[in-house]
Amino acid sequence: MADPFTWQTLAGDVSAGPRAGRLTTPHGAVETPAFIPVGTRGTVRGVLPGALRAVGVQIVLANTYHLMLRPGADVVRDLGGLHAFMAWDGPILTDSGGYQVFSLADRRRVTDQGLVFRSHIDGAEVVLTPESAVAAQNALGADVVMALDICPPYPCPRPEVEEAVRRTLAWADRCRAAHTRRDQALWGIVQGGVEEDLRCRCAESLASMDLAGYAVGGVSVGEGHENLCRVLDWTVPLLPADRPRYLMGVGEPRDVVAAVARGVDLFDCVLPTRNGRSASAFTSGGMLRLRNERFKADARPIEPGCDCPACRGFFNTLSPGGREQSEGDQALGSRHSPSPRPSPIEGKGVMKQPFSRGAIRHFFQAGEMLGPILVSIHNLRFFTRLFGRLREAVREGRFRAEAQAVLDTYAASD
Amino acid sequence: MADPFTWQTLAGDVSAGPRAGRLTTPHGAVETPAFIPVGTRGTVRGVLPGALRAVGVQIVLANTYHLMLRPGADVVRDLGGLHAFMAWDGPILTDSGGYQVFSLADRRRVTDQGLVFRSHIDGAEVVLTPESAVAAQNALGADVVMALDICPPYPCPRPEVEEAVRRTLAWADRCRAAHTRRDQALWGIVQGGVEEDLRCRCAESLASMDLAGYAVGGVSVGEGHENLCRVLDWTVPLLPADRPRYLMGVGEPRDVVAAVARGVDLFDCVLPTRNGRSASAFTSGGMLRLRNERFKADARPIEPGCDCPACRGFFNTLSPGGREQSEGDQALGSRHSPSPRPSPIEGKGVMKQPFSRGAIRHFFQAGEMLGPILVSIHNLRFFTRLFGRLREAVREGRFRAEAQAVLDTYAASD
Repeated sequence: MADPFTWQTLAGDVSAGPRAGRLTTPHGAVETPAFIPVGTRGTVRGVLPGALRAVGVQIVLANTYHLMLRPGADVVRDLGGLHAFMAWDGPILTDSGGYQVFSLADRRRVTDQGLVFRSHIDGAEVVLTPESAVAAQNALGADVVMALDICPPYPCPRPEVEEAVRRTLAWADRCRAAHTRRDQALWGIVQGGVEEDLRCRCAESLASMDLAGYAVGGVSVGEGHENLCRVLDWTVPLLPADRPRYLMGVGEPRDVVAAVARGVDLFDCVLPTRNGRSASAFTSGGMLRLRNERFKADARPIEPGCDCPACRGFFNTLSPGGREQSEGDQALGSRHSPSPRPSPIEGKGVMKQPFSRGAIRHFFQAGEMLGPILVSIHNLRFFTRLFGRLREAVREGRFRAEAQAVLDTYAASD
Repeated sequence: MADPFTWQTLAGDVSAGPRAGRLTTPHGAVETPAFIPVGTRGTVRGVLPGALRAVGVQIVLANTYHLMLRPGADVVRDLGGLHAFMAWDGPILTDSGGYQVFSLADRRRVTDQGLVFRSHIDGAEVVLTPESAVAAQNALGADVVMALDICPPYPCPRPEVEEAVRRTLAWADRCRAAHTRRDQALWGIVQGGVEEDLRCRCAESLASMDLAGYAVGGVSVGEGHENLCRVLDWTVPLLPADRPRYLMGVGEPRDVVAAVARGVDLFDCVLPTRNGRSASAFTSGGMLRLRNERFKADARPIEPGCDCPACRGFFNTLSPGGREQSEGDQALGSRHSPSPRPSPIEGKGVMKQPFSRGAIRHFFQAGEMLGPILVSIHNLRFFTRLFGRLREAVREGRFRAEAQAVLDTYAASD
């Protein structure tokens, strides 16, 4: 059987410069550089899979920690696996749960064997070992699964970072041994804080394990932009050029541009949806805080010119039964129902009415779900557009200029 | 200028028996009997306009009371009116606010002049007269606007019902005088509690005002199914046969069937969305309480055979920019982006993965928005299918049999 996972560098610098590539998985391909929206508990909050597709999302992430506690990895498996659970037939990546244990769980203990902690939901004691993290991810069934790692805080005493690297490496090896599903790819995670020698040792040792992909973890913990760049400068050149590289938890446009410049292919971040839920909209002119009184009677869409459904309108192509009318539909009145009213601009079946900033502000003021939903959708589109710009620029050999254009926009708007 | 509002009876009994008709408005036609989902504060909670279209919704309702208090009718007007505000280009109906004043507002006083009350949002004193209710609805800009009425509780002393009818009639006349927009139709509301003579007097007097449509109000206040049927038996025969008839706040399938049998054309009700938000799903086999433990590992969709997006999958036809790829899209990577993975069943660009009951239960347990969103969408489709069945049956001259089939299902499942 051919390996269902392939990596191709399509353009750019194969080693440690900006590159465009294609990751193939059993559930389709991902064109990189790519953004991975976070679907923590099996859903990108408030955004239906059709809308994810509509805004150009290629791959989503779910959290093993959350799903193993509720509803349980075996329950997800029994429901058909994560693709069925999320109703998402594209590629999915699960993280191993290590990061969440450190950020969310109560009374955790770390031993060489694994992690022991109390569930933040019901206080139950849970043990997470490299083997059980892999077993849980095998049950969940994502395309890409991550090795269990230890993510030290920042700042962190060097001996603790040393121990984190030692365990992360030992655990990656145990994860590799435990991983059985050939239709899932196991990726390793580089730790090492901001210690150059530890980062390098971790990257080299993981590289020697011949894993299917590599992540840089232990960032976005307060270390700041400069340290992030240093970590990437040390780490990326030591990772195999013929494997995808994933920077965990990073999404600020400035960090993304710097990381793509250093050869990173994939990024996950809660920013578009978390900010969306708090009425903060990304635009090319800067962030809009849509609860602000000044938007009360603003009839413009979130970002004029944006092609997301919130800014351009929702299209009436989602008819029940899709393109094929089912017999049920016909029996239930479609034969006699009115033709959709032709829009003066667009023609039959198309609804092209955007939501105004004023309406979206109102939805937030009134506590209506549509506020978070619409701004999350818009922000996701903002991110997929940003990554589309970067991909295109790499392919056309003009990454530096495009990167500068992105940075200028953000510098001007902050 | 031709009247933009027309009513045609297409089949059935024009007087007071089941009939199928077509209401034409400036924003399209409504095939009746039809269900009107409630978008209280300018949104059907959690359901985007594309999804409303997808499940066959033809017309939506918004509440003048809520919108005049927040964000203000003038703000909605300045944002382009209610169609722009809701991003819904189909027909819209607004109620006058009278019912909400009685059910929600604090310290209300009723005089012949109008209603004085305290806003439930900020305690501000608000005056609502027939003239200001029409002005607010003119500003909101719905296709159909309702006369201000007084809705007595049930039970209610006869003198109070008498006074409510007297004021409702006087106010309807004042509303008619105040209403100016020719692109909006003003409908009257029959009150009179469960007093036959008062209901008849109210219906006859309103009929003599030659309004564009007629509602039966003052029901769904605890009077019960038998009283509802009696009210309709008294009232409907006195309403003009060539005008649409609307039963306010009624949606229980048993009540709907009884009302269609008595000549009612339109119904609004919060049931599909309110129940959807509390995890109660309508199915042809009865109500499913999806928080129940027994659904934890249930891999079936909410209702096997249902064609709603939750039960059949979300279709990838909502690409950014719709059918026409914009230049921006192309510049942003579409030329190079991967072909959507062909589904083994459906072909290019189609995602046909339903959500399982187990996944939906999990979303409710975890407090994720997708729970309310998915069950609301399903329930709305359940209602549009039910109404489609009734329309079809009337057109084919087999309403009695279909009505009995609907009732048998509900009797068996309750």
